[in-house]
Amino acid sequence: RVNGDRLWDSLMDMAKIGPGIAGGNNRQTLTDADAEGRALFQKWCEDAGMTMGVDKMGTMFMTRPGTDPDALPVYVGSHLDTQPTGGKYDGVLGVLAALEIVRSMNDLGIRTKHPIVVTNWANEEGARFAPAMLASGVFAGVHSLDYAYGRQDLDGKTYGDELKRIGWLGNEEVGARKMHAYYEYHIEQGPILEAEEKQIGVVTHCQGLWWLEFTLTGREAHTGSTPMNLRVNAGLAMARIMEMVQAVAMENQPGAVGGVGQVKFSPNSRNVLPGTVIFTVDIRTPDQAKLDRMRAKIEAEAAKICEALGVGCSVEAVGHFDPVTFDPKLVASVRNAAERLGYSHMNIISGAGHDACWAAKVAPATMIMCPCVGGLSHNEAEDISKDWAAAGCDVLLQAVLETAEI
Amino acid sequence: RVNGDRLWDSLMDMAKIGPGIAGGNNRQTLTDADAEGRALFQKWCEDAGMTMGVDKMGTMFMTRPGTDPDALPVYVGSHLDTQPTGGKYDGVLGVLAALEIVRSMNDLGIRTKHPIVVTNWANEEGARFAPAMLASGVFAGVHSLDYAYGRQDLDGKTYGDELKRIGWLGNEEVGARKMHAYYEYHIEQGPILEAEEKQIGVVTHCQGLWWLEFTLTGREAHTGSTPMNLRVNAGLAMARIMEMVQAVAMENQPGAVGGVGQVKFSPNSRNVLPGTVIFTVDIRTPDQAKLDRMRAKIEAEAAKICEALGVGCSVEAVGHFDPVTFDPKLVASVRNAAERLGYSHMNIISGAGHDACWAAKVAPATMIMCPCVGGLSHNEAEDISKDWAAAGCDVLLQAVLETAEI
Ligand SMILES: NC(=O)NCCC(=O)O
Ligand SMILES: NC(=O)NCCC(=O)O
Repeated sequence: RVNGDRLWDSLMDMAKIGPGIAGGNNRQTLTDADAEGRALFQKWCEDAGMTMGVDKMGTMFMTRPGTDPDALPVYVGSHLDTQPTGGKYDGVLGVLAALEIVRSMNDLGIRTKHPIVVTNWANEEGARFAPAMLASGVFAGVHSLDYAYGRQDLDGKTYGDELKRIGWLGNEEVGARKMHAYYEYHIEQGPILEAEEKQIGVVTHCQGLWWLEFTLTGREAHTGSTPMNLRVNAGLAMARIMEMVQAVAMENQPGAVGGVGQVKFSPNSRNVLPGTVIFTVDIRTPDQAKLDRMRAKIEAEAAKICEALGVGCSVEAVGHFDPVTFDPKLVASVRNAAERLGYSHMNIISGAGHDACWAAKVAPATMIMCPCVGGLSHNEAEDISKDWAAAGCDVLLQAVLETAEI
Repeated sequence: RVNGDRLWDSLMDMAKIGPGIAGGNNRQTLTDADAEGRALFQKWCEDAGMTMGVDKMGTMFMTRPGTDPDALPVYVGSHLDTQPTGGKYDGVLGVLAALEIVRSMNDLGIRTKHPIVVTNWANEEGARFAPAMLASGVFAGVHSLDYAYGRQDLDGKTYGDELKRIGWLGNEEVGARKMHAYYEYHIEQGPILEAEEKQIGVVTHCQGLWWLEFTLTGREAHTGSTPMNLRVNAGLAMARIMEMVQAVAMENQPGAVGGVGQVKFSPNSRNVLPGTVIFTVDIRTPDQAKLDRMRAKIEAEAAKICEALGVGCSVEAVGHFDPVTFDPKLVASVRNAAERLGYSHMNIISGAGHDACWAAKVAPATMIMCPCVGGLSHNEAEDISKDWAAAGCDVLLQAVLETAEI
């Protein structure tokens, strides 16, 4: 079993970097706080005897050697970047639990045939630069490096420039590494495990996603002196599309979600009807056919809504992944480990996207989940218990040892 | 008659300061561009023999002396500040036409009994600091100076600090001046005069306004892993309120408008349901009872919408004025001047708010309007013709001469 206190202490130490405003964290990707968090993580890994490689996307690979020089490594990781008002555990738990299993192996003098590579993927959240899971996506060959470098935040700064600025542009070609297997441990970010009183989620699938960025073009005009019948009201079109997305999600229950997190009005002045409204619709479901049906319906209905108002409508898919089925052998090793350790467990489908989804394209991959209080995540109040954290880390250790072969 | 070419040249020269991105202007109040525009206007006025007073709100009063030392001045003005994507004429026409009538009087050697004070009111637009017509509102005793100084822009900068920063904090007590009368010439900002093919709008009334700033409190949560039935979705509540505002405006036709120009989602991340949504509803109508009914209905319906979604809802009125009836004698002097000059004219109700609305609280006041192309304003494409500009300025000269007594 792992050292749960040490894992918890590391979580608390990392949470001091990029503090939020309500007890959580704002350590967004490629910010100064991100650089500070990376340096601390690097030090911890090097103290544990690992050596670092960094790729051209800024992903950190910390290697503990194996006993067989020809064996491909088992990768274990997640992400240290957070939402602007993020929790202390989302992603961080997976990275520091990976570190903890290496520390525990060191304590116990355990050597594995396959090397272990503790991994911190860059820009998992996608909060600053869409899409989410950007570095693992390039690693898996889903995006080109040029595409990734050109992604812009709301201030127009690019991924490529910001990566250089914080000093974490590595020299490894992205995706050059070959993986024997990939494991990721993460908080559930949803309410199921807590409600079912299970310690371990054995993650069998991940639902698919579309991020549809709408750009609506209305006519900038005075809110007071422009009669109702002369308005080309892009804000009203947005309101109608939001309501329609809600309806599409509801008519696809159970097992589908839809919502809007980001909105930008221009010029955003109280007495000006907006000339441009940009917002992102996020839809997800584990069912591939349903996902594509939802997308098609939303785009068709949005076009009708805009046409009726005379509003211009263009849609760009700024994020997408298909539903994922994780590797049955690795899934079984997680379930068996939980069983052996005496932890209650259940199969679960990940509601959020994870780097494991892209890793699954290039290697056998799976995930482990622990509950989180009230299912709350992407909120500074996100919370887990030390026992929950440790239980999943125990399972991670056992599963990784089985795959990496003692 | 005035010198229409000179008026036009001055408009074009002023438009060079704080250029926009699409042929208009971004010369928002208390910015460096605003300071530059003020300095140019000051020079022009001083060249025309006027002397400057500046009050503690930053309003500029440029005086041309009268022949009777005991006679109160006739004030003539508007504003030089613009929207972030504003036109070249909104406000600017009224200030530079006031300057032009003084220049014309100088050319013609005309002296008036009452002094003429060409006025540039500060922060008319309310784009950067709500409410609109802030300086004239303090002048009229509607707002306190402390209230005005504390108003914040979206970056949290205050009116008081920014006024000092640009060097235009004057020493006159706000509202200490007494007015014999107040005239304001402005583009219509609506479609009526152009559609009716009239050169002059004789402004009899101004419609009343409420700016209702809604702060909706939802629960920040993951857009992917939060089931639909566990969402506290402040964005959806906003969408429903926007649709309801549209419905309330439509059921109050004719003669009412309602819309939303400013929206702020927090944390505004694509995969986070917003914790807070702030937006401003702008409703207007010339009918006092209807205005209050619309406000009451919108607040009541919004409360119901939010309650059904479990979303917290608070409303602050960040802008308000009652419908205004302009001074019948001054209105008649405008109509008579148009008639004498042979310009086509019609009575009109101002759709936008103007400094004249507050001036009307402390003096006889009225306005003159000229058409604008397509009724478009608060848009960089705002446009008028040189002839339209000059016609209204001719009327302004005649009406002011009648009131200021030759
Ligand atoms: N785990 C997580 O929150 N990832 C961010 C990408 C997503 O929105 O699912
Ligand atoms: N004239 C004008 O656009 N004033 C701004 C205040 C308003 O929104 O009516």
